[in-house]
Amino acid sequence: MQGLASVLAGIPLAALLIGPDQRIAATNPAALDLLGQGIGGRHFLTALRQPDVLTAIESTLRDHAPRRTGYQASDSGRDSSFVVHVAYIDTPESHGVLVCFEDMTEREQAAQMRRDFVANVSHELRTPLTALMGFIETLQGPARRDDKAIDRFLGIMQTEAARMERLVRDLLSLSRVESEERVRPREPVDLSGTIGSVLYMLRPMARERGCEIAFDPVEGIEVPGNADQLQQVFTNLVENAIKYGGAGNHITITIETLDKDVTLRAPGVAVRVRDRGPGIDPLHIPRLTERFYRVDTHRSREMGGTGLGLAIVKHIVNRHRGRLRISSTPGEGSEFMVILPRWTASQG
Amino acid sequence: MQGLASVLAGIPLAALLIGPDQRIAATNPAALDLLGQGIGGRHFLTALRQPDVLTAIESTLRDHAPRRTGYQASDSGRDSSFVVHVAYIDTPESHGVLVCFEDMTEREQAAQMRRDFVANVSHELRTPLTALMGFIETLQGPARRDDKAIDRFLGIMQTEAARMERLVRDLLSLSRVESEERVRPREPVDLSGTIGSVLYMLRPMARERGCEIAFDPVEGIEVPGNADQLQQVFTNLVENAIKYGGAGNHITITIETLDKDVTLRAPGVAVRVRDRGPGIDPLHIPRLTERFYRVDTHRSREMGGTGLGLAIVKHIVNRHRGRLRISSTPGEGSEFMVILPRWTASQG
Repeated sequence: MQGLASVLAGIPLAALLIGPDQRIAATNPAALDLLGQGIGGRHFLTALRQPDVLTAIESTLRDHAPRRTGYQASDSGRDSSFVVHVAYIDTPESHGVLVCFEDMTEREQAAQMRRDFVANVSHELRTPLTALMGFIETLQGPARRDDKAIDRFLGIMQTEAARMERLVRDLLSLSRVESEERVRPREPVDLSGTIGSVLYMLRPMARERGCEIAFDPVEGIEVPGNADQLQQVFTNLVENAIKYGGAGNHITITIETLDKDVTLRAPGVAVRVRDRGPGIDPLHIPRLTERFYRVDTHRSREMGGTGLGLAIVKHIVNRHRGRLRISSTPGEGSEFMVILPRWTASQG
Repeated sequence: MQGLASVLAGIPLAALLIGPDQRIAATNPAALDLLGQGIGGRHFLTALRQPDVLTAIESTLRDHAPRRTGYQASDSGRDSSFVVHVAYIDTPESHGVLVCFEDMTEREQAAQMRRDFVANVSHELRTPLTALMGFIETLQGPARRDDKAIDRFLGIMQTEAARMERLVRDLLSLSRVESEERVRPREPVDLSGTIGSVLYMLRPMARERGCEIAFDPVEGIEVPGNADQLQQVFTNLVENAIKYGGAGNHITITIETLDKDVTLRAPGVAVRVRDRGPGIDPLHIPRLTERFYRVDTHRSREMGGTGLGLAIVKHIVNRHRGRLRISSTPGEGSEFMVILPRWTASQG
């Protein structure tokens, strides 16, 4: 079976061969990962177990006709699903049934994500829309000619419409970044200058909330990137720090060069945005960059958040071949670190 | 090579083997479909042609290490893209390089569709939202205390908000139907009763537009289905016929049982919704059920259409394991035919 094992190893799917004695005659590494390291030589009934797969194999052993069926795997809480292709083969070396497992998990998850996304977008829009329609009706009926009510309601309507506009704008940003994610941007972008202009624009917001921001620019650090998108990254991070940093907030932004970052395998630069707010429960941290994931939905909406800010940050950082790391100590504050590959002479 | 050809035939991917003489020693049918029927026995350089693939094969023939690369195919205007897996194999029968083509086209198209969808939704929302925000601003400023302007603007605002609400409602319908598409609904639904109640609800709209509707119910025809969803199918189709049927419009709805429909391979029933409107250019027909595809964007928006109505119809009909057929003669009218499997005694 040496030869057939070598063929199976070349197939980019989990694959195994069942011999005429109904035992597993050959496997490839992906099949062992999927079904267990000890399946070689065992009767297929004890190795595969799912009735649809067993029936397909038995039938193909009998009539030699190819078949397709499904297989569900569950490993440490992660469900995977496969299309199983069963085919009779006949070689001088052996004959039997070749079983190949085509992994559909990613495709199914992508479909599920799309549906969740649409449901989320619709839900996010419905609330402000219902409010708007209610106010329009009230202004046409009960509050008609009531100048004070009209002024007040128009103010709320403006807030709700602006919320929807932010959502639409963030949706468009996200879809644009996603569609470009494979194309790495390569303009030299001055990092301190970018952060400086973000801070200049956010100064009024920070002042209004009594928030101090400390930033010591480091001159001459450039990264290959897209200036607008990097500006959006730091705008979103600093805005979050201002919004969620709590009372008496103090934000520190630092830039540090890394000679050879382990994950980037290249010279990098780390920008840290640190606040002294209440911090984030570690439970939430791995999910913060998911679309519409919020630690506190009510608070986020109140603050005008769309639930897409960190998802946009993550995708822009990915596009720049960088890393986003979030850490927090509840009661002491949070740190959002963006690591980007640095501009080097060879790229110039 | 007979034996290896039988193994290749069992692999559910386009696959071929290149022998030590650098010629294509074995292929499977999917590889012949992808690369041409005449590639067997040819030198791989003349059969594959794309530099990345050739380099990968040459290197693996030399050093026996596995490799991955990409392959783009274009067949009668349809682009496909593949991940190519190249692996050295060594069997008693032969040795050489196994090349497997993993088709990524569907996955890439799904990602592209999602991005287009988000961009479309955002665009559809932006127009009414901008209008709303403009009117709110005008009512807060120039038109403040101008009762006539207030009344008029509130009316337009209501129309715009209602348009957005319809879009959000249709988005939710669509995502719900899609998520259930694999689960076939099985309640017995009385077809004539469903269509009758749709017509009852649409009567005011038909009357308003001077449109006559003729329907001869056929009693006792049931289909396995979901009553609400089937009602939505016929509501969308009849609404479209009323909206786009033109002046002096006359709509005919007929029900016809099919003893054994060819495509369903089972007893079926065909419902035809026919109008005598201007008809649809055959160019548009294949694309009518795409999300946000519109023959006349301006007209559709004016009519209050979301661009999702026929996409919802298609998905509901799919879920019911039925067929939607659209035909039209420009100048004479259009026909939307829904074919559904009929309820049979064995299902009762």
